[in-house]
Amino acid sequence: MAIRVTVWNEYLHEVQFQEIAAVYPQGIHGCIQEFLEKEGFAVKTATLRQPEHGLTQEVLADTDVLIWWGHMAHHEVKDEIVERVYRRVLDGMGLIVLHSGHASKIFQKLCGTDSSRLKWREDGEKEILWVVDPGHPIAAGLGEKIILEQEEMYGEHFDIPKPDEQVFISWFQGGEVFRSGCCWRRGKGKVFYFRPGHESFPIYYNPEIQKVICNAVRWAAPVSGSPEETYGNTQPVVELHLAERTTISDLHQGKK
Amino acid sequence: MAIRVTVWNEYLHEVQFQEIAAVYPQGIHGCIQEFLEKEGFAVKTATLRQPEHGLTQEVLADTDVLIWWGHMAHHEVKDEIVERVYRRVLDGMGLIVLHSGHASKIFQKLCGTDSSRLKWREDGEKEILWVVDPGHPIAAGLGEKIILEQEEMYGEHFDIPKPDEQVFISWFQGGEVFRSGCCWRRGKGKVFYFRPGHESFPIYYNPEIQKVICNAVRWAAPVSGSPEETYGNTQPVVELHLAERTTISDLHQGKK
Amino acid sequence: MAIRVTVWNEYLHEVQFQEIAAVYPQGIHGCIQEFLEKEGFAVKTATLRQPEHGLTQEVLADTDVLIWWGHMAHHEVKDEIVERVYRRVLDGMGLIVLHSGHASKIFQKLCGTDSSRLKWREDGEKEILWVVDPGHPIAAGLGEKIILEQEEMYGEHFDIPKPDEQVFISWFQGGEVFRSGCCWRRGKGKVFYFRPGHESFPIYYNPEIQKVICNAVRWAAPVSGSPEETYGNTQPVVELHLAERTTISDLHQGKK
Amino acid sequence: MAIRVTVWNEYLHEVQFQEIAAVYPQGIHGCIQEFLEKEGFAVKTATLRQPEHGLTQEVLADTDVLIWWGHMAHHEVKDEIVERVYRRVLDGMGLIVLHSGHASKIFQKLCGTDSSRLKWREDGEKEILWVVDPGHPIAAGLGEKIILEQEEMYGEHFDIPKPDEQVFISWFQGGEVFRSGCCWRRGKGKVFYFRPGHESFPIYYNPEIQKVICNAVRWAAPVSGSPEETYGNTQPVVELHLAERTTISDLHQGKK
Repeated sequence: MAIRVTVWNEYLHEVQFQEIAAVYPQGIHGCIQEFLEKEGFAVKTATLRQPEHGLTQEVLADTDVLIWWGHMAHHEVKDEIVERVYRRVLDGMGLIVLHSGHASKIFQKLCGTDSSRLKWREDGEKEILWVVDPGHPIAAGLGEKIILEQEEMYGEHFDIPKPDEQVFISWFQGGEVFRSGCCWRRGKGKVFYFRPGHESFPIYYNPEIQKVICNAVRWAAPVSGSPEETYGNTQPVVELHLAERTTISDLHQGKK
Repeated sequence: MAIRVTVWNEYLHEVQFQEIAAVYPQGIHGCIQEFLEKEGFAVKTATLRQPEHGLTQEVLADTDVLIWWGHMAHHEVKDEIVERVYRRVLDGMGLIVLHSGHASKIFQKLCGTDSSRLKWREDGEKEILWVVDPGHPIAAGLGEKIILEQEEMYGEHFDIPKPDEQVFISWFQGGEVFRSGCCWRRGKGKVFYFRPGHESFPIYYNPEIQKVICNAVRWAAPVSGSPEETYGNTQPVVELHLAERTTISDLHQGKK
Repeated sequence: MAIRVTVWNEYLHEVQFQEIAAVYPQGIHGCIQEFLEKEGFAVKTATLRQPEHGLTQEVLADTDVLIWWGHMAHHEVKDEIVERVYRRVLDGMGLIVLHSGHASKIFQKLCGTDSSRLKWREDGEKEILWVVDPGHPIAAGLGEKIILEQEEMYGEHFDIPKPDEQVFISWFQGGEVFRSGCCWRRGKGKVFYFRPGHESFPIYYNPEIQKVICNAVRWAAPVSGSPEETYGNTQPVVELHLAERTTISDLHQGKK
Repeated sequence: MAIRVTVWNEYLHEVQFQEIAAVYPQGIHGCIQEFLEKEGFAVKTATLRQPEHGLTQEVLADTDVLIWWGHMAHHEVKDEIVERVYRRVLDGMGLIVLHSGHASKIFQKLCGTDSSRLKWREDGEKEILWVVDPGHPIAAGLGEKIILEQEEMYGEHFDIPKPDEQVFISWFQGGEVFRSGCCWRRGKGKVFYFRPGHESFPIYYNPEIQKVICNAVRWAAPVSGSPEETYGNTQPVVELHLAERTTISDLHQGKK
């Protein structure tokens, strides 16, 4: 069965700015949907201004991997929906956070750090993404680097927890580096952050960038048949033969 | 200069239950304060029912390492204070979370997972904490294991992100295991979770447990002279000689 | 195409000791081969006393995942063959090291530590393997624990580098714990260590143990289409406009 | 008591090439010794052509932290001495591997990968080392980056196991990036790899580079009072009440 992907996009830049609409006439989500469908995934989209931001319980329940692009309206995403996405990730749904999504509520919540903190510069300079884990499935089918002639710069320090797996590190023309492709596990879910994709550059039309996102969808898809964990008060697995409980008077005589 | 420690305790069990008061007549915080002071640390305490839970901006600004014990009233801790502690951790303050503090708001926020999820059983069974990283500073001065004759059990699965450093793993009489001593870094701050310390057992009087907590304070203390990071829009480090920016018509002819 | 597995077994206990032959009449390798073939893998076997230990260049070139069981004759494995296996792992071949294989030359070489160091006791006590990463593909199809009624004990401290992924932690009846299922990446290859499998207990007939090994084979299989890395002296990606080189007289005037 | 450092240098370039001798008249080891002594460390040196490469049992026993610089004669280092250094690291001695020491036998042995594999180019281009873990003690006292106007380039992919802690990532003028400051733990010992230091550039006179190495010495120094681990056949911690051992006939009736 095809992996079910939901592409979430803020979808404001494309509506408000003509020059961005020119880059992504169907919205960033439409562009991503198109190349994912060609790869055989079952793809839906959702956007900020839809009821419940398009992320109802039903939509999330039917989503294997959620892709997240947001930028100017992170604060408009309701905490209740953030909590809902968070619970689904812990339960196994994959999450791919793109570019400016680094500052989204959901990504900060999963990081446990202020991942909004980084350097940026929108001069359209060259970016080179180097593969630093060539055996990683997200790097499959690539060469040893991806060159983007014009992109927004993101620079370190990027305030994230240490990635569980580091796939890409970026070089920028102006002298900065950036951890551009980072994996974490949260609960049963996998999270991948991928840096490229400023709205004013046609990054998501780039076949290598598309390949990374397709690979990441396969990597982040839930494992089928994961153990059902039980939590809370539980009976012992082996029989307990307990010693008598320490009394308070024992205690004050200095006994453990 | 002595490391400045603030011991935060919910301080409800000791007030409400005579049998807990008998174990910790000065409160859990009082017991911890006492052995930390013997070790030469500069120690203050703070409790839930104080104004701002005792954790004012001033108190936190003067705290190198915060120790956190809470259990029955995690929900009473105000989000505003949680946020304040969180910001101080990212800024370099150490945080030591004890026992049932695993379900506190601050620990969940720093984990990025639902760390309230684990198994538990309050039968007073035997726990053996094994050192699995013998070169770690938090294990200094210990033997290869700590035996606690009677403790509450916590069992896996414990829903935490993969520890950056794993110092202890516990064995329980009833058949469970638990990752009992776990380190993470968040921003410039260090976080240590240490499992033992149920309120009805006199765990914090145990000299080996005290040694672990003292070691953890030293480990978690902020590094002096950390780089001042700059975030946001920044100038290039090396001069940019930029190519002409891609135009929309370039784009629709399939150029990157 | 089926994943190609080679099961390597020292194959001495089964030949030399009647009681072990009774447990594994076709050898440990024969038992493992059988359940792997039922799962659809293309399986060959190799043993110590074959020429080149059965691990010729051709055999390794045709192996996606190598499984390793050895115990009493680690020192008989030729360094040249160890080097050959090592190179194949770095090149992408998966390696699954079972039980007493922890002390093998190849595992020590990949660890970079003295992984022969651990505690052991052959009393046939109970082992409980707890899943501590329930979203991990190696845990698929399991419950939250595996109970083995009788096994050899291995106890911490186990001298391994910190696992990149920790899947299982074992509890033993006698009071020990052990990191029983550990993943590392080395070059393009994946390495999984799995503890159970003492030769005198029929562990590899256990369906849950078989499931773990089958899962591990799929997890460890090489990624298709990994980037071809280039090493050594390379040309710049972007044109260098170099400053004049610092002279020795500059240097002795204290200039960088 | 002062931390006892031994600076090991191959000491061939400085002897064989006049232009290198001009950069380091007292040898690279002499330069490093000098700034470490100013910092209060107790420093000795050792070189390749000394008996036992200057690394006798006595010297190593009296060394808290060993610094390693080698380049053209890695193959001349005797395996017996490599083994000796390796054992001391597992036992707690810190090891700081500098620059071309990445290809040394000891570093490869501790990595478990072919760490000789990387890209390089000796054009004297600009390197910028970015701090990516600003709370790390090795970064104390630095700014957010170190700029080296002229250095040899090292580029990814660098074939190392995933660092336990990543302190620096380098940018190079020609378009490459490199994981320049990496920490690992091996046994009780700590290992730090630090990239800068090509022999033809006066890198070790740079005050920021000196600060990094001084910080790394303090970070890598052994922990006092580490647990004494016991290995091998051990008695149970808690009394075993064992079930009867499974018999072969049980086995062939399909019982576990």
